[in-house]
Amino acid sequence: MFCFRLHRFALMNTPLYLPVSSRSMASKTQVGFIGLGNMGKPMAKNLLKHGYPVIATDVFPESCKELQELGAQIVDNPAEVADQADRVVTMLPSNPSLSRLLTGYSPNTRIKKVKKGSLLIDSSTIDPAVSKEMAVAAEKMGAVFMDAPVSGGVGAASSGKLTFMVGGVEEEFTAAQELLTCMGANVVYCGAVGTGQAAKICNNMLLAIGMIGTSETMNLGIRLGLDPKLLAKILNMSSGRCWSSDTYNPVPGVMEGVPSGNNYQGGFGTQLMAKDLGLAQTTATNTKTPVPLGSLAHQIYRMMCARGYASKDFSSVFQFLREDEENEGA
Amino acid sequence: MFCFRLHRFALMNTPLYLPVSSRSMASKTQVGFIGLGNMGKPMAKNLLKHGYPVIATDVFPESCKELQELGAQIVDNPAEVADQADRVVTMLPSNPSLSRLLTGYSPNTRIKKVKKGSLLIDSSTIDPAVSKEMAVAAEKMGAVFMDAPVSGGVGAASSGKLTFMVGGVEEEFTAAQELLTCMGANVVYCGAVGTGQAAKICNNMLLAIGMIGTSETMNLGIRLGLDPKLLAKILNMSSGRCWSSDTYNPVPGVMEGVPSGNNYQGGFGTQLMAKDLGLAQTTATNTKTPVPLGSLAHQIYRMMCARGYASKDFSSVFQFLREDEENEGA
Amino acid sequence: MFCFRLHRFALMNTPLYLPVSSRSMASKTQVGFIGLGNMGKPMAKNLLKHGYPVIATDVFPESCKELQELGAQIVDNPAEVADQADRVVTMLPSNPSLSRLLTGYSPNTRIKKVKKGSLLIDSSTIDPAVSKEMAVAAEKMGAVFMDAPVSGGVGAASSGKLTFMVGGVEEEFTAAQELLTCMGANVVYCGAVGTGQAAKICNNMLLAIGMIGTSETMNLGIRLGLDPKLLAKILNMSSGRCWSSDTYNPVPGVMEGVPSGNNYQGGFGTQLMAKDLGLAQTTATNTKTPVPLGSLAHQIYRMMCARGYASKDFSSVFQFLREDEENEGA
Amino acid sequence: MFCFRLHRFALMNTPLYLPVSSRSMASKTQVGFIGLGNMGKPMAKNLLKHGYPVIATDVFPESCKELQELGAQIVDNPAEVADQADRVVTMLPSNPSLSRLLTGYSPNTRIKKVKKGSLLIDSSTIDPAVSKEMAVAAEKMGAVFMDAPVSGGVGAASSGKLTFMVGGVEEEFTAAQELLTCMGANVVYCGAVGTGQAAKICNNMLLAIGMIGTSETMNLGIRLGLDPKLLAKILNMSSGRCWSSDTYNPVPGVMEGVPSGNNYQGGFGTQLMAKDLGLAQTTATNTKTPVPLGSLAHQIYRMMCARGYASKDFSSVFQFLREDEENEGA
Repeated sequence: MFCFRLHRFALMNTPLYLPVSSRSMASKTQVGFIGLGNMGKPMAKNLLKHGYPVIATDVFPESCKELQELGAQIVDNPAEVADQADRVVTMLPSNPSLSRLLTGYSPNTRIKKVKKGSLLIDSSTIDPAVSKEMAVAAEKMGAVFMDAPVSGGVGAASSGKLTFMVGGVEEEFTAAQELLTCMGANVVYCGAVGTGQAAKICNNMLLAIGMIGTSETMNLGIRLGLDPKLLAKILNMSSGRCWSSDTYNPVPGVMEGVPSGNNYQGGFGTQLMAKDLGLAQTTATNTKTPVPLGSLAHQIYRMMCARGYASKDFSSVFQFLREDEENEGA
Repeated sequence: MFCFRLHRFALMNTPLYLPVSSRSMASKTQVGFIGLGNMGKPMAKNLLKHGYPVIATDVFPESCKELQELGAQIVDNPAEVADQADRVVTMLPSNPSLSRLLTGYSPNTRIKKVKKGSLLIDSSTIDPAVSKEMAVAAEKMGAVFMDAPVSGGVGAASSGKLTFMVGGVEEEFTAAQELLTCMGANVVYCGAVGTGQAAKICNNMLLAIGMIGTSETMNLGIRLGLDPKLLAKILNMSSGRCWSSDTYNPVPGVMEGVPSGNNYQGGFGTQLMAKDLGLAQTTATNTKTPVPLGSLAHQIYRMMCARGYASKDFSSVFQFLREDEENEGA
Repeated sequence: MFCFRLHRFALMNTPLYLPVSSRSMASKTQVGFIGLGNMGKPMAKNLLKHGYPVIATDVFPESCKELQELGAQIVDNPAEVADQADRVVTMLPSNPSLSRLLTGYSPNTRIKKVKKGSLLIDSSTIDPAVSKEMAVAAEKMGAVFMDAPVSGGVGAASSGKLTFMVGGVEEEFTAAQELLTCMGANVVYCGAVGTGQAAKICNNMLLAIGMIGTSETMNLGIRLGLDPKLLAKILNMSSGRCWSSDTYNPVPGVMEGVPSGNNYQGGFGTQLMAKDLGLAQTTATNTKTPVPLGSLAHQIYRMMCARGYASKDFSSVFQFLREDEENEGA
Repeated sequence: MFCFRLHRFALMNTPLYLPVSSRSMASKTQVGFIGLGNMGKPMAKNLLKHGYPVIATDVFPESCKELQELGAQIVDNPAEVADQADRVVTMLPSNPSLSRLLTGYSPNTRIKKVKKGSLLIDSSTIDPAVSKEMAVAAEKMGAVFMDAPVSGGVGAASSGKLTFMVGGVEEEFTAAQELLTCMGANVVYCGAVGTGQAAKICNNMLLAIGMIGTSETMNLGIRLGLDPKLLAKILNMSSGRCWSSDTYNPVPGVMEGVPSGNNYQGGFGTQLMAKDLGLAQTTATNTKTPVPLGSLAHQIYRMMCARGYASKDFSSVFQFLREDEENEGA
């Protein structure tokens, strides 16, 4: 997503990066929003709640309609959003063609022109190398691009409790933060453009490793005669402790209020995890970084997608790995 | 290790498991200790400190001498320990032949006779299936066997801060606890015999997975331009958090007082981790449990042993995975 | 399986290993056979066909009955076989307790006594370390033990086309060969006791790796638009060639007369492969040998057992890895 | 590499794909060659040997000089080659920016114009998706693009014994074949554009899996007491057989004339294999194909690059996995 900054006093010779003072005057002016999916819609709603006029677009008319009823202005395509707003947030699926709003080839989605001095904030999860390309493209148009992927799911998006990991020119962080704090509880500056994506990808890779590891471990312990609640307790007071063991345990009955207690409905889908791990894998390949466990985690989530787990929560890897007694054989 | 209970009033028809009351009277009577290595020696010292007379043995005379000077009685072999003490603690390397004190074939180490009603506590880390065999063998001799492997290294052994994970007959746990609390800060009852080993093995498998995962992740993040301290901070406030990221970070400079800050000296050696993972693998194979990441973690630590990392701390996997700039090639 | 040599002139002071001349005189005397399962039954039949009187036993009466009708003498248990025959072949499932005929604890299966000078040939697939233990046990009884596991399935067993990989004292190989050539087309001497098992395990580990690798590769190629027959042809004329690509291709329609053309019925079952890989893994763990791909292959076949593939041919890994279009998700 | 067809009778309204008859008339007219590295130089020489005038370019002047002395015309950049030749072969390193001759952004390497009706043959190993993009770009310029990656190393390139795997419009295959047969012994038509790359990538992924698998297996067998030559012989007559075991065995002393007999000098470098596996991984990720062993093979070759094996032959994985006795530890 992109976030165009409106600056009323823009002149031909305005320096590319406006001073913070002019930015704070820009508050409560129109914010563009591209991508009103499961995540984007509640995010845009939170901008409305905080008093920002929103101009938005999405390929699905129903998503647009709901936001329109809440007061947003709906336009036909991303280019129109960029025409009118000079702060634009994008939240798009990780489809490569869609995500290349500034550098892609599609005439329907490509934004060829943005206002000079605009701030573009992309909250999609994409390859950090693509973020860098977009930043270069934005700079050529006299705009600023920042990557700001999120952690936290639909619930956090609705309640405005997302965490944003932000990469981009440090001088622009305050401007981005002003908008992002309307939608999230934590806004973390990570460094140069692309580092927001890097932080997101790194976290999710380690999360996947921890989740599969916890599932294998719990399964092994149960088979060795340990009570799962007790095993979780022991791990959580020991060096095996991780988020997947103490906060999101994949074994039904060990914890309340997590997808494992609800037949792995809701939560963070296996196919979304597989996508993020694909990004991690590609990024690691391109930087020649060995990621043996991350790579195997990717393959396991990919196999799960092939075996009917695509839309279950990613903690269902416990179920996937567990022997089916009937099928077990000798 | 075994722990023989002395009960002065033992008669021919004494029930196998004595009531707790008789056990508490048994306190401060002689405790046997077999295995005075890096871990066993400080453990035995802590028993002496708590006022227990100790009768001990080890294959290395020097280890024995040090304990003798502190007041322990030294005997020639395990059988003599078992002859005199009716509570015996064992702490042996995971060499299969050594660990089978009750079921093995070696005439030098095999204990063929224990006092009726003895309590044998084994703190070695071994295959839970072997623990079960030993429990059966002990029962045939009228004794009780419990497995009580530890977490925590030499430092925790010296300061009496070990965690014991105890498996065995629940009625005997109080008796075991009385001794183990002299040597450890936590004594956790895990269930039937073998479950102490199971808990230990499970924890260490998840620990290895978390450590390698953290190392891959930190390495990838650094290559993507993230500051390692900042990345660790982000992971630790997010779902990637684990013990290896927040308590024992493998990247030099991220944390103080961990082996990564000291060229991976000290800590928990790679070859010890490889051994524990070998146990996890064998146990998983025997119970037909899929452990894909645990299995790959085992292979990685095995490869590290082959490449000169055997005696470095297991967090040196970060160093192992990191590209050597000189060797990197095109 | 064990193969006891009858030697009519045995005296108290007979040297342990008889000269070859006495062995050739022993031909056409009774051969013991323990284990009449899918493999053992046709093997024993081939001994009968070659004119050897057979004395056999099995836990399933039906298996025994069929062989009895062909002229074999049936007895109640392994001990009786060992009492009467001095050449005994065993072909048992890889259940550890069953396989330890000479060193196990079970009163029903343990053979405590064999004739002096007997030849025991075990064709079961077991841990080479167990073979070595059995050889030691046999030697103590004045007998000779050889391991002679087979490659080739039920079809090869019926047609006498098995390959035997034989480990044991070289001087005894001729005696073993005499019997094994009745049941197999190739009898290969591998070295000291245990090396027959080693060769079998090594072959099957590489076979599993090749089969999964071929399946991944064919699947990837098909998804990239290649015709599967053409891809197989290209691989088979290039460096990707392996037995699984050129002789037992896992993709339906590429080859005739292989399980992939028959819905993966028949052939070598996934659960049998998982067992052999478990042996390979355990052996590698005990010898501290890194086997990263072998280990992952083991995990994949273990996961397949958990997902309903236990009794399908092991080439069904192609089907397991293939994306199910309906389940694929976004 | 691109191969521009010269057709003397080209008119404004010439159909895009010339009939084969006109192509055969085109023989012995100038052929462009872009990329004169280890592989490209001997390939271009073979074109010269077959009587084709060659117009070539490379970033390294020395490479150019050698070819110039043999009669080739040297020009400054790819665009000049494309200006003059209407059959162009490219053989570039897999650096993404270099390989995107038709679609890239670099002003130094980008070819913006080719002659109408040109034939462009790319023998570099790249992502099949990039080949498809280049085919689209070529078509827009009125030219034809084919991918024709090679198997076989520098030796095969020198002796004209390469294998070409060709993807592209079937009608153009004869024209491509005419040139490629000057440089290779086998020219295989694989299907639509991109399938040449697909076949190459698939073969190399399976090759890597087979090589690591063979190395693990040989290592395990040796540790279990098998003679390596005997083990290789057994595998090669059994179902474990593969190209790496029977033609390019990685164990020193097993075969003559392979890199394992020459301290892993020469052959196919580990870093080149790591690159091809990176392509396979990326392609698998993009097509959502699970490749667990391929993915782990990639990671292992990546780790080897990090540990000093980058320029050794890829069969040195045997050495990498082999335990170093000194370092082995307890």
